[in-house]
This record gives sequence, C-alpha cells and structure tokens, in this order.
Amino acid sequence: MSKRLSDCRVTVIGLGLMGASLCMDLVQGGLCREVRGVARRAETALRAFFTHAVDQATTDLHTGVAGADIVVLATPVRTIVDLLGEVGPLLWPGTLVMDMGSTKSDICAAMERLPQGIQPVGGHPMAGKEQAGFAAAEPNLYRGATWILSPLERTSPEALALAQELVEALGARPVFLEPQRHDRLVASISHLPFLLASGLIHAVDRLGEQDSLVWELAAGGFRDTSRVAASDTRMFLDILMTNRSAVLDQLDSFCGQLGELRQLLADGNEEALAAKLAHSRTLRANWKKK
Amino acid sequence: MSKRLSDCRVTVIGLGLMGASLCMDLVQGGLCREVRGVARRAETALRAFFTHAVDQATTDLHTGVAGADIVVLATPVRTIVDLLGEVGPLLWPGTLVMDMGSTKSDICAAMERLPQGIQPVGGHPMAGKEQAGFAAAEPNLYRGATWILSPLERTSPEALALAQELVEALGARPVFLEPQRHDRLVASISHLPFLLASGLIHAVDRLGEQDSLVWELAAGGFRDTSRVAASDTRMFLDILMTNRSAVLDQLDSFCGQLGELRQLLADGNEEALAAKLAHSRTLRANWKKK
Repeated sequence: MSKRLSDCRVTVIGLGLMGASLCMDLVQGGLCREVRGVARRAETALRAFFTHAVDQATTDLHTGVAGADIVVLATPVRTIVDLLGEVGPLLWPGTLVMDMGSTKSDICAAMERLPQGIQPVGGHPMAGKEQAGFAAAEPNLYRGATWILSPLERTSPEALALAQELVEALGARPVFLEPQRHDRLVASISHLPFLLASGLIHAVDRLGEQDSLVWELAAGGFRDTSRVAASDTRMFLDILMTNRSAVLDQLDSFCGQLGELRQLLADGNEEALAAKLAHSRTLRANWKKK
Repeated sequence: MSKRLSDCRVTVIGLGLMGASLCMDLVQGGLCREVRGVARRAETALRAFFTHAVDQATTDLHTGVAGADIVVLATPVRTIVDLLGEVGPLLWPGTLVMDMGSTKSDICAAMERLPQGIQPVGGHPMAGKEQAGFAAAEPNLYRGATWILSPLERTSPEALALAQELVEALGARPVFLEPQRHDRLVASISHLPFLLASGLIHAVDRLGEQDSLVWELAAGGFRDTSRVAASDTRMFLDILMTNRSAVLDQLDSFCGQLGELRQLLADGNEEALAAKLAHSRTLRANWKKK
C-alpha cells in the first residue's frame, strides 16, 4: 500500500538554507502530517521551532527520526554520507530517505549501504543563493527549480513516486539522472563557475595590493562574475572533494578554451577572436530562450 | 569666461546604449540648451528624434557638430579614435570633446592630436548592461555610477570643470584617473571577467556536445558567472585590442591563481584549499560593505 505525502511525518536533518526552506514550504503548505527539524545547534532548533518553520525541533538524531516516514538529509555532502551510516539502523523498514546534497556519486554509494528495506532516493534541488544558514532560508525557494532525483536499483516504484510527489508539491520540476552523469554536468555549470569566481577574486586582490582603487571601481561585470565565490566554503569544499575528477576535467577543458582566447588576443588574430566571442555571445544570449 | 552646462549645445555621436541613455538624461532633465544626436543609421536617428531622446538628430557628422559647445563620442573605442581625427577640424576653438569609451590610453593619445584650442577630456562611465543599441537605452543609467575622467595636460581647468558638471548633473560620481592606470584596473575587473565568461560558455558548449542536458540544468551560478559574455562583440573586440598588454597580464595573473586552486584540489590538500576559498569568500562578501 503506497503512502501519500499528506500522511507522512517528515524529518529534515540540517536546518541551513536548503533544509529550513524545505521545512517552511512543508509547514506553510500543510503538505504533510508533521515536519520535524534536526539541527546541530540548540539555538537553531529553538529558532526554527519558535518561528514555526517546523512543527517539532531537536538536536538529537534519535528523537528526530523516530517514527519518521520520510527523512531528508540537508547538510554538506560529506556529513550526509556520514549521517547515512548513523541514521540507517534507527529507521523502520519502508522509510523513504532523501537528500539535498550537491553531488550524488558518493551519497548514492552510501545510500546503497543502508539497511535492507529502507528506500533511498538521492536528490539535488538546483536552487540556492550565496547566503547560508537558517537566517537565509525562505519559503518558495524551490518553486520553478529543477530538482534532480537519483533513485537506486533497490528503490521501489512507490518510494520513488512519494519522492516525486514531495518535489512536485514544492513547485519544483523533477528530473531523473544517474549520479555520475549528474556530477559531470554540475562540475561544468556549478563547480567550475565557483572556482572561476574564486580565482578572479584572488587575481583582483593581487592587483589590489598595488592599487586598492580596483575594489572601488569594480562594477557590474565583476559583481556578476564573482558572485558565487561568496558561497559557503564548507559546503563547496565538500562538493569539490566529492567530485574531484569531474571538476578537474572541466577545469582543464575551460583552461584550454581560455588559452585559445589568450592566444588569439596575443597574436592579434582579430577575425578568429571575433568569431569565438560572437559564438559565446550567441550561445549565452539564446540560452533558455528555446 | 567659463561656460555652464545649461548654456551648451551638446552633440552626442553614437546613439547606442551609452550615447542614447546620455541624451535621454540631458533632454529629460533640461540640463543643457540643446541635445543633438549623430547616428550611423538613418533609422536610429529618426527613432531618437521621434521618441524625444534628442532635440535634433542627423546621420551627417558635419551637421551634427556644427556650432556645438560639447561633443561626446559614444561609439566603440576604435571608432572614437578614428572620429577624433575627423571631427577635430570641424570644431570651434574652446569646444569640449569628451568620450565614453571603455579604454582610455589610445583615445587620450588621439585626443592629444586634436587641433590646438580644442579641449579634450577622456571619460568612461562605469555603467552598462549586456544589451546594446538604442533599444536598450534608458534614462538614469548613470545615476550612482562611477565616471572616470582623464583630462590631458592641455585641458584647461574651465573645460575640466564643465566635464565634471555634466557628469555630476547625471548623478554620476567623477573619479580622475590617468589613462594607463585606468586601463590596468579595468583589465582586471571588466575585461578579464568578460574573457572568463566567454571561456566558461565555450567549456559548457564542449560538454554540451556530448550531453545537451547541460544547458537545461544550468542555473544561478552559471547564469551570473557567464552573464557578461552576452555583451556586444564589436564593442569588446575594440576594448581587448586597445588594451592588449594589460589584459594579457591580468589573464596570466588569473591563470596562476586558478592553477593554484587546481593543484590544491588535485593534491587533496583540503586545509590549504579551504583557506584559499575562505579568503576569496571573505573578500567578496565584504566588498562594498566598507
């Protein structure tokens, strides 16, 4: 007999930006039977409780997951991997275990090791912002976003349907992807841009050591290109360390492209430089217009 | 006797985003005696005239600058350099000649060659957006923006004061900079980000040849980091070609920084990687908060 979201007790572990935003949607939309939050710090748990972001809040993992129908892990990636080992033995058979981590290979491998009967579905909502933590959380963060779902072979169709129901109830669009394919794609469109932004800031900082006016003059182009460098360091360290080979591949691909642009400029090969710039301009201008 | 802006006939050559936005501010604010626009295409001249973006519009350079007190060149950089040679002999002594080009060394060198008695002041409003052309122009584009002014040694204090009056009347903040210093700074905060954005798009495009889903999944991080790549190709080609050595220097500085990040990731040197990412995070998060 398959469960509906409205019958479920949902426990969200990790009340940062992603987890707390999820809780707010679940509570405000009345989407499930009960929303429980598990925070590392008592302060966060109390704040979530007294702002009605959750129905119940605790810092104790055992208390948090006892009797849950759905457990969602919303911490940095390597903490999710660790938590999966800890949480598994505490759950009833049939419990749906989801996560919101930004890389999927290591997490789905850890989900494979969950006790038999537990129903795992990896996930990654493609939404967020630079600000981190409970204070940055907000309702409707996932509305209109793509939410990657990575079911395992062991995942039952009913469990996957329940995961999909949750994602759609938040207004997000589920896209099913194998973990390795997901990680290769996000290395290019998310992890690479983050490293470029960090490298740009370090380069500007080097010039700033000679001429501090550079920070004052920096405007729109710098602002946009560097924005993601303000993202949470701990979160991104986990992302990079659990997606190393794909990120290194994409870095090398990028450096090849930048090297070509550099050579054309150094050679004064205007025609080829203009063609290459016009091509990226067209790709960017037409992106998501289709 | 020094002129006030309100007494001046102002001719703006080039009715793209920058020039037409300037005209709109001058006309709507009633800031000067007359605003004339010179466009390359008759269609643009007519459109500017009939939408009241200018008081008078023409495609003829001679007609446009005849009797002007202030001439503002608002075309791509190398066209400004060419126009300075053409326009010089047509102007009365005492005419203030300004420009809105994104690099300053070549333009200020060309201004040096203007006939004696002409008063040149190089300039660069640090405002703009990816969209180009008259259709993208809007009032108040320069409000709150930094507007670099590069007077020459030959520039009279009265002419510089008039240039400053114009900039301040638009709500912009004048900052005085020598051309070479300007060009080195913008290589870092504007021209480098543009090349990174273009390189990123080419790298994503390469992955997209194997897996076109990459374009569909691309979200916030990619959107921001790649945004400036949609800028006008012709404009940026002129910028890069007139600021080659500074841009190559900044590119090499960036590649050194990115190479360090790559090495730390490849080595799994988490501590040093975290420190470097945390440093750029702090710099970016604190930027403009001071």
